[in-house]
Amino acid sequence: MSELHWEASIHHDGSPAYLRFSGRLGDTAVIRLRLTADAPVSAVFVRTCPDGEQQITPMRDLGRNGVCRWWEGELPIRMLRTNYRFLLRAEDGTRWYSAGGVTRHYPTDANDFVVLANYHAPDWVRDAVFYQIFPDRFADGDPSNNVRDGEYLYRGKPVVARRWGELPNRETGQIEFFGGDLQGIAQRLDYLTDLGVSALYLNPIFRAPSNHKYDVEDYTTIDPHLGGEAGLLLLRQALDERAMRVVLDIVPNHCGITHSWFVAAQADPRAPTAEFFTFRRHPDDYESWLGVKTLPKLNYRSVRLREVMYAGPDAIMRRWLRPPYRIDGWRIDVANMLGRLGPDNLGHKIGRGIRRAVKAEQPNAYLLGEHFFDGTPHLQGEELDATMNYQGFTFPIWRWLGGFEFNPNRPEADPRPIATETVAAQWTAFRAAIPWQVATQQFNLLGSHDTPRLRTIVGDDLARVRVAMTLLFCYPGVPCIYYGDEIGLTGGGDPDCRRTMPWDEAEWDHDLRAFVRRLAHLRRSAPALRWGGFQQLYAQGETIAFQREAPEERLIVVARRSDDGLRALPVRHAGLADGVALRELFTGAETVVRSGMVDISSLPATGAQVWRVM
Amino acid sequence: MSELHWEASIHHDGSPAYLRFSGRLGDTAVIRLRLTADAPVSAVFVRTCPDGEQQITPMRDLGRNGVCRWWEGELPIRMLRTNYRFLLRAEDGTRWYSAGGVTRHYPTDANDFVVLANYHAPDWVRDAVFYQIFPDRFADGDPSNNVRDGEYLYRGKPVVARRWGELPNRETGQIEFFGGDLQGIAQRLDYLTDLGVSALYLNPIFRAPSNHKYDVEDYTTIDPHLGGEAGLLLLRQALDERAMRVVLDIVPNHCGITHSWFVAAQADPRAPTAEFFTFRRHPDDYESWLGVKTLPKLNYRSVRLREVMYAGPDAIMRRWLRPPYRIDGWRIDVANMLGRLGPDNLGHKIGRGIRRAVKAEQPNAYLLGEHFFDGTPHLQGEELDATMNYQGFTFPIWRWLGGFEFNPNRPEADPRPIATETVAAQWTAFRAAIPWQVATQQFNLLGSHDTPRLRTIVGDDLARVRVAMTLLFCYPGVPCIYYGDEIGLTGGGDPDCRRTMPWDEAEWDHDLRAFVRRLAHLRRSAPALRWGGFQQLYAQGETIAFQREAPEERLIVVARRSDDGLRALPVRHAGLADGVALRELFTGAETVVRSGMVDISSLPATGAQVWRVM
Repeated sequence: MSELHWEASIHHDGSPAYLRFSGRLGDTAVIRLRLTADAPVSAVFVRTCPDGEQQITPMRDLGRNGVCRWWEGELPIRMLRTNYRFLLRAEDGTRWYSAGGVTRHYPTDANDFVVLANYHAPDWVRDAVFYQIFPDRFADGDPSNNVRDGEYLYRGKPVVARRWGELPNRETGQIEFFGGDLQGIAQRLDYLTDLGVSALYLNPIFRAPSNHKYDVEDYTTIDPHLGGEAGLLLLRQALDERAMRVVLDIVPNHCGITHSWFVAAQADPRAPTAEFFTFRRHPDDYESWLGVKTLPKLNYRSVRLREVMYAGPDAIMRRWLRPPYRIDGWRIDVANMLGRLGPDNLGHKIGRGIRRAVKAEQPNAYLLGEHFFDGTPHLQGEELDATMNYQGFTFPIWRWLGGFEFNPNRPEADPRPIATETVAAQWTAFRAAIPWQVATQQFNLLGSHDTPRLRTIVGDDLARVRVAMTLLFCYPGVPCIYYGDEIGLTGGGDPDCRRTMPWDEAEWDHDLRAFVRRLAHLRRSAPALRWGGFQQLYAQGETIAFQREAPEERLIVVARRSDDGLRALPVRHAGLADGVALRELFTGAETVVRSGMVDISSLPATGAQVWRVM
Repeated sequence: MSELHWEASIHHDGSPAYLRFSGRLGDTAVIRLRLTADAPVSAVFVRTCPDGEQQITPMRDLGRNGVCRWWEGELPIRMLRTNYRFLLRAEDGTRWYSAGGVTRHYPTDANDFVVLANYHAPDWVRDAVFYQIFPDRFADGDPSNNVRDGEYLYRGKPVVARRWGELPNRETGQIEFFGGDLQGIAQRLDYLTDLGVSALYLNPIFRAPSNHKYDVEDYTTIDPHLGGEAGLLLLRQALDERAMRVVLDIVPNHCGITHSWFVAAQADPRAPTAEFFTFRRHPDDYESWLGVKTLPKLNYRSVRLREVMYAGPDAIMRRWLRPPYRIDGWRIDVANMLGRLGPDNLGHKIGRGIRRAVKAEQPNAYLLGEHFFDGTPHLQGEELDATMNYQGFTFPIWRWLGGFEFNPNRPEADPRPIATETVAAQWTAFRAAIPWQVATQQFNLLGSHDTPRLRTIVGDDLARVRVAMTLLFCYPGVPCIYYGDEIGLTGGGDPDCRRTMPWDEAEWDHDLRAFVRRLAHLRRSAPALRWGGFQQLYAQGETIAFQREAPEERLIVVARRSDDGLRALPVRHAGLADGVALRELFTGAETVVRSGMVDISSLPATGAQVWRVM
């Protein structure tokens, strides 16, 4: 173990190497825990709480195996949600081990491991590589549907047509249009499949006057400037030909001020849709998204609204899942705010209702929620399949690589880079708060239409971009590339992060694209990255390392932001014995574990390596 | 700060010195945070999440005040539950501070401080000193109602009458009777008021064949051997004369096999009460408490059962709250298991239903649940007012003072005493998981009818008994004395912990009783103990110390299990400047803070002190 304490070798997670379970209520799971062979531990127990009553069961010592000792036990699964943790009797006292880590005290159950029974995960998600597209800016497939300069007024101002390649303008913000459309996306799918992409997440495409279309005017039609329903059908067909998936963005929290529901409600307090909104005083004082009056907040105390939005047989969220569009899931805008207004906190109730409706319609639909904060209460198997994993994945990397502040002008902003230990601690906290089955389908990203671009965040340092990209494709969860990041697009906050995609290849960073392409293909072919476990191996100095481990494959991922003098990575606590051979996937370099260490002297000062155990 | 890091001085809790709030939804709370004056902190922010959206607001620096610096801010309370934490900008990076402590990473919300609005706490609980009585063993007020030897059969065996003072017999376990009754309790109330007791918790008194009466035969009558309804009326009157309270023990999870509901259900699967139970196969294969067939588990999928037990207008849990009995609350047996059976987890639903019904009947009723594990999910303001705080208070003390194992014969038992740091960590974890308003009404105890007695647990070491008693009366929450512990009764596990109370004063430990009496009266008169905040000051070596702090009074509590050489306690991080005078409440000793330390050289190797700031 060299300098690491034996506690660092305690490992379990919900992956197949550590948990074998049919998934069916009533069956018994077999669980395993691994320790370094010389850990002073004389017994291991599994602790669970069937029907609320604690049960502590001894595990079997499977004996020494190389540098490891494995313990095995049974966990009868009688509840839809079974939480469990481990108790280890060590030479110097008892330890509790849960997904949150090791404690000497009896912990609360909050960070227990959790296994869900009769839980259906979308069957394609964990194998997917996503690509996020802001439709107006990706590709203009049909110039005839482009918004014409001054074609209509938006809040009294004429809309502006822009030329592809021009920079977004903060002045004309949401009313400038570049002509991107669904036809354009369909035409560029071969570019995406070549890159390794298998699924799209599209920003909103329902009819709406702005370019971002979060101000929905009609949830039942596709904006004609993006190609209309015909454009979506065309895209669906092109996706089907490539076995690709598409997730649409829906805004159930609020609508646009031009939506007929709101127009009617504002005109007449007795209108049938008046109850869809919360008028503090009719007609002009009403609840809206963060006080933005053009985005009136929808009122989910209204049972009729629930019927229309998701619950009824022909509800909006059901209809688009059906032929001929057959979309593969929903990204739910501001899922954090949905159904919440002061004392009326219907967030979880609406969340469960949406899941029931969507999964009844299409069990393999992916339910992804926007959540910039702690979304883990919505990730317990009853609501969302995933959140945009900003806090659990993205922000620690930004702050580590760039010292980046999401709101740099706010008084609390702290632009100083965080310590490597802090990255690992935050990742652990957010992973430990959700079942492993959900963690593997979390939506990981390095930026979006709402944030500056990664390359800009890390100060245009392409080595750091590569470090971040490696982490994106190797961390548990599903990776998503924000369009253009792969060719080195830069951009600050909205609207600068929504520049048009350059299709003149001379403008591309081909090396970066090749690197991302390699990662994407690795991700899609590597069992360890798709369903392997996760063990944090190292997080000190400037270096972070973890193991991804499937029965079929083991990978050691090392990432470094700057030179810290570390030339050898301790791996005995990862279960790797001296003499084990590894090959680095980018360089083909080979090495052998010696004295419990892997030689990483070939790692650049800023760079990443992925070692496969041979 | 002497050797302590400045982070140890960061303090906030929900007590009046740190949070001022009317309690009403819509009002604004004023919150304060205290730091040592020389902490390298340039700004403090409060972070909350109204309607799911993060809000970070700067706090005002109130300037240096002695050794402290206070920061103040506003927290608008727009939700029934508002969670918040603090962000501190320090010289060497940002800190997050929540009820769980300090982190460098952005934490999940799980350990945020929480303030509940429109929350009605029982108005008498936080001022109470409880006394738990096992009715058959406390006092025999009416020998005429005693169970006679062989009076009836219990599971085929004749019941046994025992003489007061004889030891309980494991052989005759639950079918031996000593004659204690409600009249006896009523007659001894002056003993209890003298001791400082203001509230009783009685083990079950509803009609049932065993001595413990957890096998209820009729929830609507009082067992005649305990004095019947007349006995309860007599006790109620005697309590009223002394402004005392009484909480009864109810068993809603299961009933006895002789209950008419079960008799009818077993006789006829079409009986109206058949749905109150879960027959796997009628009539003999049914769900029961931990497989004990004489205690059939009640089935809360039955709406009719809910009506009968708590929800209906004349439900059992409502009726006893009404005149003439007017009981002051319920202790809910195995609250951890209630409503749970495999995939049917109605635990929280039933918990909320019970609260609604009980509080509608009597807003000041105390709802206390038995929970040997992590009960914090039931302590969020919507269900229980308190649990028997075994994990959050008792067990760490047992393991610290006695290395005690609750189930010493189980393979996972570890009889080694735990480290002092571990006590503090466990206390913190369980306190941080619940709102402060609930923490102050948690039911703290040092033993019960279900456990060995404290004196036995600490190996008959009376100094350690005094240490534990001091912690009991000084820790946040409501203290409960298990009958006889105050006069030094010993006893192992059930039934040995249920010995008869000796009324021959020659058998008492008068010194211990005087000590407990002093603590009880201190507790009832000291604002800092009734509503003061809690700051952990020290937990190293063999010594644990904390501050209780109300606007009216500040107390420093120090407890030590054995000599560790500590002669002076650091208190600068408690906000105590050099020159502040303190008086020790047991000895009257006085001292003055010097170099940030309180001289505790007068503390015995094993003992406790309570210092009041003068």
